Amino acid sequence: MRFYRTGHEGFYAAHDPSGELRLLYSDPYETLPAGWEYGRPIDLEQEGLLPPVFPRKIVGIGRNYRAHAEELGNPMPTEPLIFLKAPTSVIGPAATIQLPPESERVEFEGEIAVVMRQRLTQGNAEQARRAILGVTCACDVTARDLQKSDATFARGKSFDTFCPIGPAVQVDADLDDLEVVTRVNGNERQRGHTERMQWGIVDLVVYVSRMMTLEPGDLILTGTPAGVGPLADGDEIEVEVSGVGRLKNKVGVRRT
Amino acid sequence: MRFYRTGHEGFYAAHDPSGELRLLYSDPYETLPAGWEYGRPIDLEQEGLLPPVFPRKIVGIGRNYRAHAEELGNPMPTEPLIFLKAPTSVIGPAATIQLPPESERVEFEGEIAVVMRQRLTQGNAEQARRAILGVTCACDVTARDLQKSDATFARGKSFDTFCPIGPAVQVDADLDDLEVVTRVNGNERQRGHTERMQWGIVDLVVYVSRMMTLEPGDLILTGTPAGVGPLADGDEIEVEVSGVGRLKNKVGVRRT
Repeated sequence: MRFYRTGHEGFYAAHDPSGELRLLYSDPYETLPAGWEYGRPIDLEQEGLLPPVFPRKIVGIGRNYRAHAEELGNPMPTEPLIFLKAPTSVIGPAATIQLPPESERVEFEGEIAVVMRQRLTQGNAEQARRAILGVTCACDVTARDLQKSDATFARGKSFDTFCPIGPAVQVDADLDDLEVVTRVNGNERQRGHTERMQWGIVDLVVYVSRMMTLEPGDLILTGTPAGVGPLADGDEIEVEVSGVGRLKNKVGVRRT
Repeated sequence: MRFYRTGHEGFYAAHDPSGELRLLYSDPYETLPAGWEYGRPIDLEQEGLLPPVFPRKIVGIGRNYRAHAEELGNPMPTEPLIFLKAPTSVIGPAATIQLPPESERVEFEGEIAVVMRQRLTQGNAEQARRAILGVTCACDVTARDLQKSDATFARGKSFDTFCPIGPAVQVDADLDDLEVVTRVNGNERQRGHTERMQWGIVDLVVYVSRMMTLEPGDLILTGTPAGVGPLADGDEIEVEVSGVGRLKNKVGVRRT
């Protein structure tokens, strides 16, 4: 089951058992899908989609697929390499990724993003599984030139619009059997699977929670497979994760 | 004028014109001190202090004082070097900085922290001045070994308890004439002044807002002067900024 956020108000919405998309009265952070209660039907064409979650913290994982580390000429780290993206970089489905004047090479990185349901500090694997709400699609947009030239990843990863997420959060995903596919202008560019991650989703949540408390709505971007490449004005980027749907965003140039 | 957050509820408090500390009815993000309205008297001994702000985003600035860049053997960057700290690293006055088992060298960095009042995207100097609420004291606690060994600053800077802030926010500070002093167990270890920053407070806000939208309550840590050093179990660290007061925190060892 998956839920969306819709309209100006940010109401949750989900498909009822008959398949109709309706307002979701229940709080998906509190109530399992079996107990969801529904309201009026929703027309997504009219009401539009927001980011399904507004995280306070976005933790990225670098080099979690060996083939991607190799394509950037980086060694595999001996433990997960973490970085932070500013929460203000989040945009929803159909919003435009804006290429900033500071960078000459902005790249896409399609990823599986984990959404936290509960607060978690120094959790073990079982606690981590319980604390995860579900997964969504993310594009970890990266100004590759600035990431390489700066001593930190912060600037290259945190421009406004550099974190499209959505379209939905899938709440009953099999965290060990998820595929992510990235397409640019309809052509497949990346394909990854949780099986080929160096550290699995639960491992990553355990690892991060040892250092920093995770809070409801926090996102962990689980790393990108091989195949990253540059984005250009007018491109359409699409990230698809099993059971979540397709996150599509246009690319434009920032005016100022 | 400065305001505090107090008690379990997080109420604002401030000194009234007679000097008595009372609840602050007004929202200091909306109302200038001249218009502040006050409620019942507050006994800080009883009610305690919270962090004066709960930021969504904490932007750190590396190497903003030449003498500090030199002491770490780093060249001065040609533009501000930014990094992010997790918002979950924030603690208030009197809370304990916890040394984690992952690091063998945790250091203090006393800093002037800027608090944003208004949303700001790609602002100029005048807009940046208007969008700033005030300043507070911060200790940018850093696991120096991890900062050096990792490809990013994220882990070394973002452990829980690694961002003490407070005790107050000063809302009418002269942003070009502020001093910061750090003491460990009563002994002065760092002394810096806005005059000796490579980039001033307004410059930094303008710079960051070009990349990422700043939001009310967001913090910018403006960099640390020379004199950083390690923290040990039982230490008391104190950061004082002109007009703000003294932020004091004990240091302990994390149990698990």
